[in-house]
Amino acid sequence: MSRAEVVCIGTELLLGDVLDTNSQFLAQQLALLGLDCFYTVTVGDNPERIKACMREALSRSDVLITSGGLGPTADDLTTECLAGLCGAPLEMDQDLLAFITGLFAARGFAMPESNKKQALRPRGADILPNPVGSAPGVVWRLSPENLAHAAIVAGNKVKTVLTFPGVPSELKAMWQGTAYDYLAKNYSASTIWSQELKHFGIGESALAEMFAHLLELSNPTVAPYAGRWECRLRVAAKAETQEAARALAQPVIDEIKAKSGVRCYGVDKDTLESTVGALLIEKGLTLATAESCTGGLVSERLTDIPGSSKYVMLNAVTYSDHSKQELLGVSAQLLQEFGAVSAQCAEAMAHGMRKLSECDLALSVTGIAGPEGGNADKPVGTVYIGLSAAGKDASGASAPLYFGRTLKLGARLPRAEVRWRTANEALNMVRLYLIDPLEFAREIAAQSQASPQMSQALPKYL
Amino acid sequence: MSRAEVVCIGTELLLGDVLDTNSQFLAQQLALLGLDCFYTVTVGDNPERIKACMREALSRSDVLITSGGLGPTADDLTTECLAGLCGAPLEMDQDLLAFITGLFAARGFAMPESNKKQALRPRGADILPNPVGSAPGVVWRLSPENLAHAAIVAGNKVKTVLTFPGVPSELKAMWQGTAYDYLAKNYSASTIWSQELKHFGIGESALAEMFAHLLELSNPTVAPYAGRWECRLRVAAKAETQEAARALAQPVIDEIKAKSGVRCYGVDKDTLESTVGALLIEKGLTLATAESCTGGLVSERLTDIPGSSKYVMLNAVTYSDHSKQELLGVSAQLLQEFGAVSAQCAEAMAHGMRKLSECDLALSVTGIAGPEGGNADKPVGTVYIGLSAAGKDASGASAPLYFGRTLKLGARLPRAEVRWRTANEALNMVRLYLIDPLEFAREIAAQSQASPQMSQALPKYL
Repeated sequence: MSRAEVVCIGTELLLGDVLDTNSQFLAQQLALLGLDCFYTVTVGDNPERIKACMREALSRSDVLITSGGLGPTADDLTTECLAGLCGAPLEMDQDLLAFITGLFAARGFAMPESNKKQALRPRGADILPNPVGSAPGVVWRLSPENLAHAAIVAGNKVKTVLTFPGVPSELKAMWQGTAYDYLAKNYSASTIWSQELKHFGIGESALAEMFAHLLELSNPTVAPYAGRWECRLRVAAKAETQEAARALAQPVIDEIKAKSGVRCYGVDKDTLESTVGALLIEKGLTLATAESCTGGLVSERLTDIPGSSKYVMLNAVTYSDHSKQELLGVSAQLLQEFGAVSAQCAEAMAHGMRKLSECDLALSVTGIAGPEGGNADKPVGTVYIGLSAAGKDASGASAPLYFGRTLKLGARLPRAEVRWRTANEALNMVRLYLIDPLEFAREIAAQSQASPQMSQALPKYL
Repeated sequence: MSRAEVVCIGTELLLGDVLDTNSQFLAQQLALLGLDCFYTVTVGDNPERIKACMREALSRSDVLITSGGLGPTADDLTTECLAGLCGAPLEMDQDLLAFITGLFAARGFAMPESNKKQALRPRGADILPNPVGSAPGVVWRLSPENLAHAAIVAGNKVKTVLTFPGVPSELKAMWQGTAYDYLAKNYSASTIWSQELKHFGIGESALAEMFAHLLELSNPTVAPYAGRWECRLRVAAKAETQEAARALAQPVIDEIKAKSGVRCYGVDKDTLESTVGALLIEKGLTLATAESCTGGLVSERLTDIPGSSKYVMLNAVTYSDHSKQELLGVSAQLLQEFGAVSAQCAEAMAHGMRKLSECDLALSVTGIAGPEGGNADKPVGTVYIGLSAAGKDASGASAPLYFGRTLKLGARLPRAEVRWRTANEALNMVRLYLIDPLEFAREIAAQSQASPQMSQALPKYL
């Protein structure tokens, strides 16, 4: 089994100015590839210390992955240190130089002299393309001369270095675009096939208890992870081919899906919003949103999905009382009697939005995201969600359906978490309605009977 | 100046199951104390590798801080490894054992046998109290015998180890309760004060060139960092007190702010949206948004700021042509002639939104976020931003002001980046308008003269 090691480079990391999320991403990806990762190291912008870390990592691992230090400024030292350690001259890549110069020209600027260094690469190294930024990295299979110069004993092992910029979006794009496949082809003997089963409406420990017998398996392995107000079970199988690994995992996946039912909303890259989108397309329905406390987050997440213009027509953020009245037709009397943060207002917003947008469904959210604005009766974290849908009564006359939920998320939850959790619950309401409206109606009715102020105090946060 | 090093222990970190936030917290705290931190290392639950990391850290630093591995289970190895490395027997601390047993008794449980090991500590080590959990750490000033056993050459330096659990809330409570003061008293001679100057509208390398003479300073230091379509300069000064350090940094900060002008939009935790919010409050103005391709992202970011209900009343996401007509009064003829993604449509949306919302300002965004929907004339990444503001002509009659911008962000930019970058540009337009409307008007006029289709092709190597 091959080994990889991650070295993050940047004084800003060692001063705590930046939270390193790259190490976690890379660690997850290396596990997927079936590569061992025994250490990650962070080092500042100091050439001697950078070289020492690179040397140590290459001595104990087959693959060195660096993050950071590829920028144009004087404290960006990764390429230079790597070339120095391995005794390779730095050469100007003319194609790359032309490309970077072109980027500046397109913006009407002359390229600053300092950016030239981003076109340098050690002799023998290939470019690791960067689809989203100006600085590519390198993928460099070290020659025996390189290894000898660095005083690294490699035996008959092939040692490779991959360098990435520190900006997470660029690192990820480069990883997914090139590096993953490169490592899979060159270093991954056994392969791991895995799938994450995304769950909503059940906690990590309840999920772990429900599938306790599966957590003890060794191949495939099953492990629970907590996400942001949702959780997932990762099923991973190891075999010689992806097909064989998948075949090992499939029966376990089937068992989990059968038992979890609608609580398992999707797999891998599925999100609540992508699942809602797929269901809307499948049923040929459209959805509008009228948001208050979430301020556009539900709309933003829905439209994050390519092709969402098929089912999103019009969404509104009615933040003021006045806009709730004028745009959605919420009555002044209702606002005076119950307030804008009320089940009654959520209902009026949903119906009003459905009428305004002429969509099949309308979702409304009103609540107190904090940190100010709560009181004893309605503390911060009190949220009302409504869903209005076209319906007909027995005689065939129009009779809109309405479903409402109350969340009490706990007054200590930070504003951003109140908003995110609320968006999850709102999207999930639409999802459950779309899967089975009748079952959903029964569920909502049971919930409001059981606890009219459905308390969802959240002990796990912080 | 003393040196400290952080070693995080736990296989879950190396599998990417858990995001390490302790390293950042500890790094920030060490900087505050004025202790150098040259490395942080993460290692799994393997005794030989843990001991090797501990030894290396103690060889190159005065203070070793560990996080993780203090729990009751078999893979919690920190205390045992530390004792083994330094040749000290593990002793049962009877007071601690009684304390832990008491914790369980208070909850009505018998203590599991495995928890006993949490009361073990190496001979010579003191307890580092844990105010919130069951497992304390140790603070251990190593004796010459300990150092000799670990084969560490200390010269005349005092080497100390502090161990913490991996749970962030416990680590922080122990740090603030005991460890900070201990290190301040025994190791700290100076402290660091720092500020980040956030910039928009200038690239990292241009910024570095502009302040090249400052990047060479040693106290304060100045360093540029790239963010998500923005960048920042960090100014950090070291002195005996926070006040003295700040005084050292201030002239440099003043110089940067003076030279950067409006390109420096704020400091530290300021964001474009918080800056826009503060300006709106200062001027007593309100802002509405009509978004198409950003789908609510601008609205979501504006309302992410506590207190934004003072200036946000109504925002709309008009995704369909129909909703642009119905809600904003964009004419069918305009849509047919120029299309929904056009400068003309952005202008009509902005004016329409200002009228609908009755706000002082209205911002509009329409464009192609991709990955589908582009064509040769308007590729993915083509975005039109509009800003409508109340105005009067010379006679005092109402004459709305309008400012428009065209972005060409490059067809290969991922959807999420097109949306984020667009939101930045849109928020920045409002910011510049609020700072100085006349100057802003001149700027916009100059831009559209210089390049009517202001091309902003972005890095897209390969």
